[in-house]
Amino acid sequence: MAATLLSALLVEILIPVAALIGMVFALIQWFLVSRVSVGGGQASINNGYDQSLLDDEEGYDDAEAVALCAEIQNAISEGAESFLITEYQYLGIFMAVFSVFIFLFLGSVGGFSTKWVSCKANPSELCAPPLANALFSTVAFILGALTSTLSGYLGMKIATYANARTTLEARKGVGLYESIAGYGLGGSSVALFGRVGGGIYTKAADVGADLVGKVERNIPEDDPRNPAVIADNVGDNVGDIAGMGADLFGSFAESSCAALVVSSISSFGADRDFVAMSFPLLISSAGIVVCLITTIFATDLFVIKSVKEIEPSLKRQLVISTVLMTLAIAAVCYLALPSTFTINVVGHQPKVVKNWKLFFCVGSGLWAGLIIGYTTEYFTSNAYQPVRDVADSCRTGAATNVIFGLALGYKSVIIPVLAIAVAIFLSFSLAAMYGIAVAALGMLSTLATGLAIDAYGPISDNAGGIAEMAGMPHKVRERTDALDAAGNTTAAIGKGFAIGSAALVSLALFGAFVSRAGIAVVDVIQPKEFVGLIVGAMLPYWFSAMTMKSVGKAALAMVEEVRRQFNTIPGLMEGTVKPDYKRCVKISTDASLREMIPPGALVMLTPLIVGTLFGSSTLAGLLAGALVSGVQIAISASNTGGAWDNAKKYIEAGASDHARSLGPKGSDAHKAAVIGDTVGDPLKDTSGPSLNILIKLMAVESLVFAPFFAAHGGIFFKWLNI
Amino acid sequence: MAATLLSALLVEILIPVAALIGMVFALIQWFLVSRVSVGGGQASINNGYDQSLLDDEEGYDDAEAVALCAEIQNAISEGAESFLITEYQYLGIFMAVFSVFIFLFLGSVGGFSTKWVSCKANPSELCAPPLANALFSTVAFILGALTSTLSGYLGMKIATYANARTTLEARKGVGLYESIAGYGLGGSSVALFGRVGGGIYTKAADVGADLVGKVERNIPEDDPRNPAVIADNVGDNVGDIAGMGADLFGSFAESSCAALVVSSISSFGADRDFVAMSFPLLISSAGIVVCLITTIFATDLFVIKSVKEIEPSLKRQLVISTVLMTLAIAAVCYLALPSTFTINVVGHQPKVVKNWKLFFCVGSGLWAGLIIGYTTEYFTSNAYQPVRDVADSCRTGAATNVIFGLALGYKSVIIPVLAIAVAIFLSFSLAAMYGIAVAALGMLSTLATGLAIDAYGPISDNAGGIAEMAGMPHKVRERTDALDAAGNTTAAIGKGFAIGSAALVSLALFGAFVSRAGIAVVDVIQPKEFVGLIVGAMLPYWFSAMTMKSVGKAALAMVEEVRRQFNTIPGLMEGTVKPDYKRCVKISTDASLREMIPPGALVMLTPLIVGTLFGSSTLAGLLAGALVSGVQIAISASNTGGAWDNAKKYIEAGASDHARSLGPKGSDAHKAAVIGDTVGDPLKDTSGPSLNILIKLMAVESLVFAPFFAAHGGIFFKWLNI
Repeated sequence: MAATLLSALLVEILIPVAALIGMVFALIQWFLVSRVSVGGGQASINNGYDQSLLDDEEGYDDAEAVALCAEIQNAISEGAESFLITEYQYLGIFMAVFSVFIFLFLGSVGGFSTKWVSCKANPSELCAPPLANALFSTVAFILGALTSTLSGYLGMKIATYANARTTLEARKGVGLYESIAGYGLGGSSVALFGRVGGGIYTKAADVGADLVGKVERNIPEDDPRNPAVIADNVGDNVGDIAGMGADLFGSFAESSCAALVVSSISSFGADRDFVAMSFPLLISSAGIVVCLITTIFATDLFVIKSVKEIEPSLKRQLVISTVLMTLAIAAVCYLALPSTFTINVVGHQPKVVKNWKLFFCVGSGLWAGLIIGYTTEYFTSNAYQPVRDVADSCRTGAATNVIFGLALGYKSVIIPVLAIAVAIFLSFSLAAMYGIAVAALGMLSTLATGLAIDAYGPISDNAGGIAEMAGMPHKVRERTDALDAAGNTTAAIGKGFAIGSAALVSLALFGAFVSRAGIAVVDVIQPKEFVGLIVGAMLPYWFSAMTMKSVGKAALAMVEEVRRQFNTIPGLMEGTVKPDYKRCVKISTDASLREMIPPGALVMLTPLIVGTLFGSSTLAGLLAGALVSGVQIAISASNTGGAWDNAKKYIEAGASDHARSLGPKGSDAHKAAVIGDTVGDPLKDTSGPSLNILIKLMAVESLVFAPFFAAHGGIFFKWLNI
Repeated sequence: MAATLLSALLVEILIPVAALIGMVFALIQWFLVSRVSVGGGQASINNGYDQSLLDDEEGYDDAEAVALCAEIQNAISEGAESFLITEYQYLGIFMAVFSVFIFLFLGSVGGFSTKWVSCKANPSELCAPPLANALFSTVAFILGALTSTLSGYLGMKIATYANARTTLEARKGVGLYESIAGYGLGGSSVALFGRVGGGIYTKAADVGADLVGKVERNIPEDDPRNPAVIADNVGDNVGDIAGMGADLFGSFAESSCAALVVSSISSFGADRDFVAMSFPLLISSAGIVVCLITTIFATDLFVIKSVKEIEPSLKRQLVISTVLMTLAIAAVCYLALPSTFTINVVGHQPKVVKNWKLFFCVGSGLWAGLIIGYTTEYFTSNAYQPVRDVADSCRTGAATNVIFGLALGYKSVIIPVLAIAVAIFLSFSLAAMYGIAVAALGMLSTLATGLAIDAYGPISDNAGGIAEMAGMPHKVRERTDALDAAGNTTAAIGKGFAIGSAALVSLALFGAFVSRAGIAVVDVIQPKEFVGLIVGAMLPYWFSAMTMKSVGKAALAMVEEVRRQFNTIPGLMEGTVKPDYKRCVKISTDASLREMIPPGALVMLTPLIVGTLFGSSTLAGLLAGALVSGVQIAISASNTGGAWDNAKKYIEAGASDHARSLGPKGSDAHKAAVIGDTVGDPLKDTSGPSLNILIKLMAVESLVFAPFFAAHGGIFFKWLNI
C-alpha cells in the first residue's frame, strides 16, 4: 500500500471535527438571528438597513405591526407543522409497506437461506447470506428515511458519517458493504414526499389563493382576508425549503453511497477500503469548512448596504466557495490519498488511478456547478437580456410571452448540459464510476452555500407576505419584492445545482447498479436496451403530466374552499372577521399528499415492474433514457418559470425606461406577464424539481433491488424464451 | 438458395406495374377534381353537398364570388411558386457546397487513390476504391435532392425504384451498394428546407397576419384587406403540404436505403441480394395498390353526406388500409421470400430468419402506426374528453389553458412511444436492423392514405380563407370551419405518422451507421457514448429554441410590413384599394429561408463536427440521444398545438351546452383559448415537425460520412491520446 500523508487516525478525527465546527457555527448564526425579536420590541442588532426609513409612513404603528407579525408567523409555523405531521403519517405507512417489500424481494434472492456463501469479489472467502443483505438493506432503508426526515443540514452530515461508520463495521464482518444503498433509497423516498408532495402543496395554495383572491375578489396578493394566504406561505416553506433540503440531502447520501458501492463491487483491495471510505467524507468535511469561511467572507467582511448588492453578494459567495473548495480538494487529494491506487471495473481492465486524477474528478463537478449557476443566473435574472426579451414580448400579448419563455427555457439547457457532459467525460475517463460519484460530491461540496442561496427565495417571499398581512408601509413591500426578485434567480440557481448534481448522482448510481446487476455492457443497439432507452426517455413526460395535473386538482380543492369561505363567512371581505386559515392548510395538506400518490407510484413501481418483467438490461436502458431526457426537461422547466416570474417583476419594478414602457402594474403587457408567471409556477416549483427525484430514486431503487433482478428478473422474456 | 414462390422476373414486372397503376389512378382523380371549374360557371359534378344550401343568402352573387375565388387562387399559386423559386436558389447553393464536402470528405478516406481494394464483406474479392464511393455518394446525393425537389407522391415511387435499380447495377459491378445512402441524404436535405423553411414561413405569415389584422386593426381572419392574407394561405401550402410531403418522401427513401445498406453491410450472400432488394420495393408497391383500393372503398362506396361524417370517414380509411395492408404483407412474405434466409449482423452471430418473421416486422410497424393515429385523434379531436378539459380550463384563464395543454401534450406521448417501443422490440429481435427498416416501411406503406389525411387540414383551411376573402355567405365559412376542425385532428394524425416513422427510420439508419462505421457495441456506460447520449438528448431542445426564435423573427418582419401597408396605403382599411400581397409573400419567403440557416446549420454540422472531433462512438451516442429525446418533444409539441387549436374551435362552434357555456366568440374563455392556439402554432407547425428532420438527417448524414469518421474521425481524442 502506498503511504498517505494523512494517517488513518487523523482522518477519523478530522471528519467529526469538521461536522462539529459546522454545528457550532450554525448555532451561533441561529442565536444572532433569534435576537431579532419578533414577539415585541425593536430589533436590537444592526441589520444593514437604515432604520429611519421604516418610521413615520402611512401612520404606521410599529408595536401593532410587530405583534401582528408574531401572530402571522405562528400561524405559518403551525401550518407547516400540521403538514409535516400528516406527511409523517403517510410516510410511516409507505415505509412499513416498502420495508416489507425490500425484505421479501431481496430475501428471495437466496431463497431466505441463512447459509454463508462465497464472496463475489473474492470467491475463496465466505460472505454473509443474501438474507443478511435483505435485512441490512431494510434497516439501512429505514435508517435513511428516518435520518432524512429528522435531518437539517447538520443532521445530514452526522448521519452520513454515522451511517458510513456503521457500514464500514458491517463490511469488516460480513461483506455487506452494498447494503448501504438501502440508506440512499430511504433518504430519497423521503425526498419524494418532500419534493413532489411539497411541490404540489406550494402551488395548489399559491394558485388557489391567487385565483379566488386576486382574480375573483380583486384583493391584493397576501391580503390577510384571503383564507388561503397562510397556506400559501406555508407552501413556500414545505415546498421550496423542506423539499429542496430533502432533495439535496438525498443527492448527498446517494453520491456517498454510490462511491461506496462502486468501490465495494470494484473490489478495492482490503487496504483500499479506507481510502474509498474516507475520501468522500473528507471532501464533504472540507466542504463544511469552506462554506463556513465563505459565509464569513461574504457577509461579515462585505456588509450589504442596499438591495441592489444582494444578488452580486450571493454570486460572490458562489465564486469564493468554489475557488476555496478547489484548493481544499487539492489539499485533500495530496494529503489523504496514496499517490497511486487501483480501481477495478466489472467486465473491464482494472484502472490504475493517480491521486491528481481524483482532484480533476471532484474539481470538474465543482466547476460544472459554478458554470450551471452562472448560466442559470444569466437566463433568469432580469439584469440580463434574455429575461428582458421575454418581458418585451409581453407587448404583443400573453401568447408571445409564453412562446419566448418556452424558447428561453429550451435554450438555457445547452450550456449546463455541455458542462455536465464535460464533467462526466473527465471524471468517467479518469476514474470510471467512482470518478462520477466523487464529481457529484464535488458539485455538492458547496451545498451549504447553495442551500442558503436557494432558501433565500422563499424566505424573502414569506417576508413580503408577512409585511403585507401586517399592514406594513408600502416601502417595506417594495423592498421585499426586490429581495424576492433576487430570490427567484437564486432559487433557479439552487435548482440548477440540484438537477446538475442529480444527473451526476444518478449516473453514479446507474453505474453501481450495472456493476451490481453484473451487466458488463449496456449496448443500445440491442433491442432490450434500446426499448428501455426510448421508454425511459418518455417517463419524465409522463411524470410531468401527472404532477401538473395533481397541482391542478389540488388547486381546485383549494379554490372551492376559499370560495366557500368568502361566500359563507359574513364580514370576511370587510376584514371584521378572520377567515378559517387552518381549514385551508388542512385542505392543501390532504390534497397534496393524496395527489402525490400517482406520480409517486410511477417512480417507485417502474423500476420494480420493468426489472421483474423485462430484466436488468432493459432496466439499464430505461435508467439511461430517463436520466438524459429528465435532465433537459428539469433545467428548461425551472429556468422558464424563473424567467417568467422575473419578467413580471421587471415590469412591476419599472426600474428602467424600457421597463416603464411596459408597465405599470395592470397594463396589458403586465397582464400578459402575469399569465406567463402563472404558467411557470407549476413548471418551476413542482414538475421541474420533482424530476430530480424521478431520476435519482429510480436509479437507487434499481441499485437496491439489483440482486433480485439478477436472480429472478426478466420473467416475461424468460416466458417468451428470448 | 431456398426457392421463392414469386420468380425474379415477375417481381421485376410487378413493381413498376404497381407504380403505374398508382399513377393512372392519380391522373383520373386529378381529372375529376379539375372538372370543378374555378374560372367560372357552376361545378358540374356532385360534390356531396346539397347545392341549394349555398344560394339565396346575404345577397350572395355567385358569378362574382367565383371570379373572386379564381383571382385569389391565382395569387396563392403565384405566392407558392415564388417561395419555391427562391427556395431552389438557396437549395442550389447548398447542394453545390455540400456536394463538394461529400466528395472531399469521402474521397479523403482512401487518400483519393484510384486503386481497387479488397472488399470488407469478402476480403478475397476486389471492390472499387473509396474514391468511387465518394463519387457515387455525391451523385446519389444530388440525385436524391433533385428527385425530392421534383417529386410528388408518384415521382417518389418511380424515383425509389429507379434509384434502387441503378444501385443494384452498381453493386453488381463494383460493390458500391452503400453509396445509396447519399440518395437519402439528398432527399432529407430538401426536406430540411421544406419542413423547417416552410414551417417558419407558414407561422410567420400566420402570426403576422393575425397580430396586425385581428389584434391591432380588429378586422376578421382572412379578410382580403389584410396584406398578409395571401402569404398566410401560401404558408399553409408550402409548410403543411410541401413540407410534410418532403418529410415523408425522405422517410420513404431513407428506410429503403437503410434496408439496402444494412443488407449490403450484413453481407447477404450473393443470391440473397435479390430478396433484400426487392422485398422493400414489393412492400411499397403493395402499399400503392392497397391505398388505391382504400380510396375507392372509403369515398366512392360510402358517399359522405354531412360534415360530421368526415372525421369517421378519414379514420375508416386508416383502418381499412391497415387491415388490407396486413393481408398484402402476408401475401408478399409468403410469395416473394424464401422460407428461410440468413441476415448477418456486424459483430454478432448471423441471424437465421424465417419469412413469417418479416411479416411480423412489417406488420408491427404498420399497426404501431394505426395505434399512433388513433391515440393522436383521441388527444386532439374535440369529440373526446382531453380537448374538452383543455377548453374547460379556459374558464380560469389563459394560464390554466396553457398548463392543461402542456400536460395534455406530455401525456399524449405515452401510448405512441410504447407502440413504437413494441414495434422496435419485435422487429429488432426478429430481424435485427433489417427488421427495423422494413417496420418503418410498414408504417409508411399506408402513406398515400396518410398524406391524403394530412393534406386535408391545410386544404380546408385554405378553402375557408378563400371563402372569407371572396365574401361568400356565412354558412360556407361555418362549413369550412368544421372541415378545418376535422383537418386539425387529421393533421395531427399525419404528424404522428411522420414522427413515428421518422423514429423507426432513424433507428434503422443509426443501425446502418453503426455497422458501416465498424462499431460492434454502443455501450452507454462508457464515457464517450454517454456524453454523446446526454448531449444528443439536448439537441432537440437547442433546435426547438432556434426554430421558435426564427418564427418570432420572421413574424416580426411580417408585422412591420403589414403595419407599414396599413399606415401608408390610403383606402386600404376602407377596402377601396388592394394591399400589396406580393411584397408580403416576398418578405415571408426571404425571412423564412434566411431564418432557417441557423437551425439548418445545427443539424447539418453537428454530425460532421462531432464525428470529426470525437469519433464514431461519441457520434453513435449522440444519434441515440437525439432520437429518443426528439421523438418525445415532437409528439408532445404537435399534439399540444392540435389540442389548443381544437379547444378554441370547440368553443367557437358551440355545438353542446358545455361548449356554449364557454363561448361565444369574444368571451373571456374564448380569449384564453385564442392565446393557447397562438402558443401552439409554432409548436405544432414548426418546431415539432422539424424535429423529424433533425433526427433523420443527422442519422443519414452520419451514415454517408461513416467511412470518413472511421478513417479520420476523433482527432480531438487522438490528440488527447485517449
